[in-house]
This record gives sequence, structure tokens and C-alpha cells, in this order.
Amino acid sequence: MDKVIGLRCVECGKLYPEGEVLYTCPACGDKEPWGILDVEYDYERQARTFNKDWLQRAEHSIWRYLPILPIGDGARLPTLQCGWTPVMELPKIAKRWGIANFFVKDDGRLPTGSFKDRASCVGATRAVELGYDTITCSSTGNAASSLAGFSANLGLKAYIFVPAHAPEAKVAQLRIFKSTVLLVEGTYDEAYYLCQDAAKTFGWYNRNCAINPVLIEGKKTSGLEAAEQLAARIPDWVSVAVGDGCTIAGIWKGFVEMKRFGVIDKLPRLLGVQAAGAQPIYEAWQAGDEKLRPRRAETLADSIAVGRPRNQTKALRAIRASGGAMVSVEDEEILSAMYELAQHTGIFGEPAGVTGVAGLLRAIGNGTVKPNETVLHVLSGSGLKDVRSAMRACPEARRIGVSLDDVRRVVAEG
Amino acid sequence: MDKVIGLRCVECGKLYPEGEVLYTCPACGDKEPWGILDVEYDYERQARTFNKDWLQRAEHSIWRYLPILPIGDGARLPTLQCGWTPVMELPKIAKRWGIANFFVKDDGRLPTGSFKDRASCVGATRAVELGYDTITCSSTGNAASSLAGFSANLGLKAYIFVPAHAPEAKVAQLRIFKSTVLLVEGTYDEAYYLCQDAAKTFGWYNRNCAINPVLIEGKKTSGLEAAEQLAARIPDWVSVAVGDGCTIAGIWKGFVEMKRFGVIDKLPRLLGVQAAGAQPIYEAWQAGDEKLRPRRAETLADSIAVGRPRNQTKALRAIRASGGAMVSVEDEEILSAMYELAQHTGIFGEPAGVTGVAGLLRAIGNGTVKPNETVLHVLSGSGLKDVRSAMRACPEARRIGVSLDDVRRVVAEG
Repeated sequence: MDKVIGLRCVECGKLYPEGEVLYTCPACGDKEPWGILDVEYDYERQARTFNKDWLQRAEHSIWRYLPILPIGDGARLPTLQCGWTPVMELPKIAKRWGIANFFVKDDGRLPTGSFKDRASCVGATRAVELGYDTITCSSTGNAASSLAGFSANLGLKAYIFVPAHAPEAKVAQLRIFKSTVLLVEGTYDEAYYLCQDAAKTFGWYNRNCAINPVLIEGKKTSGLEAAEQLAARIPDWVSVAVGDGCTIAGIWKGFVEMKRFGVIDKLPRLLGVQAAGAQPIYEAWQAGDEKLRPRRAETLADSIAVGRPRNQTKALRAIRASGGAMVSVEDEEILSAMYELAQHTGIFGEPAGVTGVAGLLRAIGNGTVKPNETVLHVLSGSGLKDVRSAMRACPEARRIGVSLDDVRRVVAEG
Repeated sequence: MDKVIGLRCVECGKLYPEGEVLYTCPACGDKEPWGILDVEYDYERQARTFNKDWLQRAEHSIWRYLPILPIGDGARLPTLQCGWTPVMELPKIAKRWGIANFFVKDDGRLPTGSFKDRASCVGATRAVELGYDTITCSSTGNAASSLAGFSANLGLKAYIFVPAHAPEAKVAQLRIFKSTVLLVEGTYDEAYYLCQDAAKTFGWYNRNCAINPVLIEGKKTSGLEAAEQLAARIPDWVSVAVGDGCTIAGIWKGFVEMKRFGVIDKLPRLLGVQAAGAQPIYEAWQAGDEKLRPRRAETLADSIAVGRPRNQTKALRAIRASGGAMVSVEDEEILSAMYELAQHTGIFGEPAGVTGVAGLLRAIGNGTVKPNETVLHVLSGSGLKDVRSAMRACPEARRIGVSLDDVRRVVAEG
């Protein structure tokens, strides 16, 4: 692939030619901090074709960015449409919160209902391109359901390792897409390592963002799109929930690339938001270092319940490079952000999907985000993914008889 | 509104000037067959602005069709993006089924996850335009959740009448959008009439497709979009699930308008599909008349569980005008169509959303749809809306210990 210069280790800096290494840096070994690789492109070469003309003609999906994705130009692409989710301008709620403007990019509209579709779309496509017929991942939910969907579409066999406590809607998605679901009676970490071992043992392609460098390339498309969609109105801040760290790092890479190609001339600051029950990256941010502080992960925002993040280095560097900030929020704040956003905008996100909103409200409260500033929130998953949490976030429905008097009573209560 | 000639009764043919009547035909009265009205536009006048140039510049939402929607040009529009859902070409599954090509328009990607968003978006916008501050509807689910979402976005107070047995995911959506949910301890019909009475008594705007003629105008946008998206490749058939009849009639109106404006030069045939447990329109089709045969509605496809359809006349006329056909399918066929579509394409629809697929498989089987023909299916709701049905449609997940041997056993089973 001429467009890829190579894969560079974020820890030791070593550059590997494309095709030589699939996952993490061999020099750094298989242990913490793992030697996560980053795909580097020949941007000058690609700029010859990837320009405003190209973008004007390109289809509205992540494949408009094929020139800067680690997929061959002639590869077989999925028929399941992925990407170009709407960015909505929501001045009413911005006013309510006392900021200049607020935008939401609703990635809950992606094919299986979450941001992870971007990564799985690229990962599954790459697996097929490399000749694999089987793919695997371990996930708290969305990575898995999105992989199941794209595997179904591309005809890949998928083995998916899920902690046994994952929400039923997410597991139902895995099953309906005919993947083989392995509910592992153990922690997320145990499911993760079992999946790693199985991939090696059986020769499956490994779709774990933790180690597979092509997945963040899928995630960056959200940033690429947002940059194009907002163009001259790039926000002061982008708020993103942080679990493993791969998502926020991917979104940042998208914005940076769009600046490099001249599509935008300003970069936003990143507001990284962790749930208080799973905040190792936030703790490293507070401490001002990149040291990993693994801990038990307990939050209702299951998509970001990561106690041992593997993309912490990329995430912290992105947030720092952007001049950004991090905050941490309690589960109650997440539930209340879910209800706040839904009742004022009609946008319903799952807990991790609105964690960034909870963080934004904190950041407005503590003065990090100023009244004259604008904010884009990347909503990473549909609220339909986790209806149980929604039911905890808002008042009960009323049961009434078939009687106008019953209605009148409810109306009188206001 | 200069663009609207008037509202014409589908039963007696009387034309009312825009603004004179809100709901059904006063001459036909408030009883069966209700005198449903149809909005007629001054197409010649609108063609001066609404043309290919307009469409090239217009935004990707239903508002690109504002010149042929019953909303004033200066109205306040919702900030919740609605419309322009993807049409996906799925040749692999077409080959599997033995037809020339198969397309899915995934309206499960709309903001609250169903086709009904199109109707609610237009209905709620119209309510605001007319000066109402309160809106109501009765619904088995999706009409309600979509109305709740758009009411939240526009700041309307919403009272929603739902039969007490509606799926929890749909009720959770109503609650999270802060509508007042009235779970009526009665049948769908009882909830419907209670809502009608309440609207009259309390002076609320009534968003029931059954009687409000602006809602089908929202629904037609799916046909308008599909016509634009497929353009020179208009399919031989469009398969649509039928409950009340308003959806299939709306989609037809969209195609017909696009032919009138010269965007397409061919019309598809409609394949109307009812669930066997709720098939009054299918029975009228079989009998070759328009007579209403109300019956108990019992199907797991709750979104089309309508025993007393109110748009039967519009639906039957659309299907007949198209040279189309109707089929009826059992609930088991709906579940198996859900699994079939999901496992081969990665597209996960709720039961009503895939009822058209079940019907298509019937129609291929009985020779109605021929091997050399192409089909577009309009998928009307996300599978995440009704996860319980999905779980009935496919094999269980496997529980394993944290052990490679357990994995090996599953792999060996294939």
C-alpha cells in the first residue's frame, strides 16, 4: 500500500513497514505499555488526489476517506453503509447551559447503533483483504455488536468474547448477526486475554482496538467528518467519553488530518470525560504523567468501563496536544445528562454516549469551558442499546383506565 | 400557503381550502370510513423552484422537500436531523434469494429509530406553526416515541396514549423525552378513542395518522428520497409492511411526485405485506373491494398490529395503481426473516421492519416477484426497538469458563 509509510510505535518510536507487523510493536513486547502502533501515511502523495474536488464528489460514508485509510484501493468494501452521521446545531440547550453554541454528532445513527461501527467496518474490511475468514474480539458490548454486524455483511465468521454481565440488547445483536457469542464467566480483562490467546491459537484476525492499529483509523473518520461538516465553525471544544482511550485519540487524529489537508484551519480542544468508577486515564492526567494506574472498573456506562486502558498514551497525548482538559463524573451525573439531553433535544444516548455531556456540564461549572465558547459532543451510542439505564434516569409512565376523568386528573397535576 | 391547493376527501372527493379543516372530512362525518383527507399541491407552481437545481443544493434531510410539504416556508423547523437514510445495494442476498437485485432503505437510522420519525417531524412542526403548545397521539409505540422526540426538540408538551402492553424499549423512549405517558388499561382502539376525546376536550393538536392529513406527507419523504437515491435504477418492486395503511400510501405518493417532477421516469410496483394476525387490508385486497373488515389484531409485529385500519382506502388504491400485490405472513416467517436479513447483511430490523422481507420471500416463492426483478425494501424500525423478539429469532449465546479448552470445544462444534 503506497499510501502508508509505515506503523510507528507510540512508545519506542520504531517504524515498521506496512505488512510487516499486524498488531503491537515487537520491540516493546507483549506487556504494558504494549507498544501500540500508529499508521503513518504519505500525506503529500495522497494530497494529489485527496482534496476538495475529491470530497465534493465522494460518497457520504467513511469510504470517502479511503485515501487516508489503511485499506487497499481495490479492496472489497462492505455493503452496509457506515458513516456521515448528522451534526446537529442545538442553540436552545446551549443557551440553557450558558455557552455560545452546542453541536451533537449522533454516532448512535451508525448501522448497529454505536461509534464502534467505524472501527469494525475498517477492521472487518481489512481482515477480508488480508485473506482471513474468521475474526474475533472481546468487548463490553458495542465493539462486539458492530463487529458482528460487519462480519455478517462481509461473510466472515466471528467469535466474540463478552463478559457474562453485558446488557441484553447488545448480546441480542451479536446473536441476530449469527456470530458465535462466548459469554465468559469472568472479568472484562479475563475475557480480553482469553480472546487474545484464542486468536493466536486458532489463527483468527484480532479486532481489539487495544492492539490492532487499523481500528483507530476507522474511529478517526468521526473527526474527519465533523471537521468537514463544521468546516468554518470548528468548535472550541469537542467532548468525548474516554474508556480505553482509542476513541478520543482517533477523533483527534481526524481533526489533525483535516487541518493538514487544508479543509479546516483551526483545531478544537479535547474535553476527555471518564466515569469516576473507571478513571485511570483521568488519574494519569491529574498526575501529569502517562503512567498506567490499573483499577477495578465499575460504572453503569459499560462501554467505557475499562480498568486497564491500552490506548492511554495516545489519548493523553491527544488531549495535551489539543490544549484540552479532562474531567471525571459520577454515574448519577451520567443518568441526569441522559435525561437532560433527551428532554431538551430529542437525542437519546446510552450512558457512555452522554458521559461527555455530563463532563461538559462539569466543565462549564468549574470554568474550564467558558460562556463564549462552542462545543461539539460526539454521542457514541444509541440509548436503545441500554434501555434499563434510561428507565432509571426518568419518571415512570402513568397507568390510567379508559376514562377521560383519569386523563383530566393527570393534566391537572401538570 | 400558496403551494397547497386544498385537502381532498378520499371518500367523497370534496376539496377543502387549506386552513379550513384540520383533520377528517366534515361532510363524511366522524365515522367509518372516516373521510381521510389528502393534501393536494399546486405542482406547476412549485416546479418553478423545486427542480434538479434545487435538489442539488438542498440539505440532506426531509426539509429538502419543503416545497411539497404542508409547512410554511418560514416555519420554525426542528433541530433534530430527520431523513436521507441510506439505501444499500445487497447483491449477495439477492442472489441467495434468486432475484436480480435487492436494496434496503434503512429507516431504522432515523433519530428515534423508526420510519414514524418522518410523520412526527412534520406533525410536530405543523403543531408549532399553528400555535399549539400541546400535542397528543395514541400509538402502539413508534409513532409515540418519535412524537415524544420531536416534541422534546421543539418544546411542545406531549400527552401520549399507549396500550399498557407496549414493549418496554418504546415506553422508555417516551419517558426519557419527558412526554406524559398514559398507559391505558385497554385495547389499542380504546386508547385511540380516549386520545381523540382528550384532544377535543383539552384543545390539543392531534398527531394520529389515522385522521391527520399532514402526517402522510412526512411519510412520503421516504419515497421521495428512495426515488432520488435510486434514480435510474428504480426497482420493479417496493416491499412495505402494512398496518394502518398510511405508510405504504405515503411511500407511493413520494414516488408518484418524483415521477411528476421528472426525477424518475418509471414507478415501482408495491408489495404490501400484512401479518396474518392483523390482515384486514389484505382481506379487502383478496376480496377485490375497499370494504373494511375490522378484526382482532394479534401479531408480534406490534407496529403493524392494527385491527381497524383508517387509511385502508389510500393503501389499496396505491397498491392497485402501482399494479402491485399483497401477501400475508405468519409471525414465524417474520422472526425468520429478521434472522435471515441480519445474518446475511448486518441489518437488524424490528418485527414490523422486516415483515416486508418475509412477504418478499413469500412473493418470490409464489411467483409474484420474478427472478429477473429488483426489489427495494423499506425497513421501518430498528431491531433495538424490540430486543425480546430478536432473542426469539436466533440461537442462544454460549456460556464458557475462562479456558482455552472451552473455546476449543465451541470451535470444534463449528
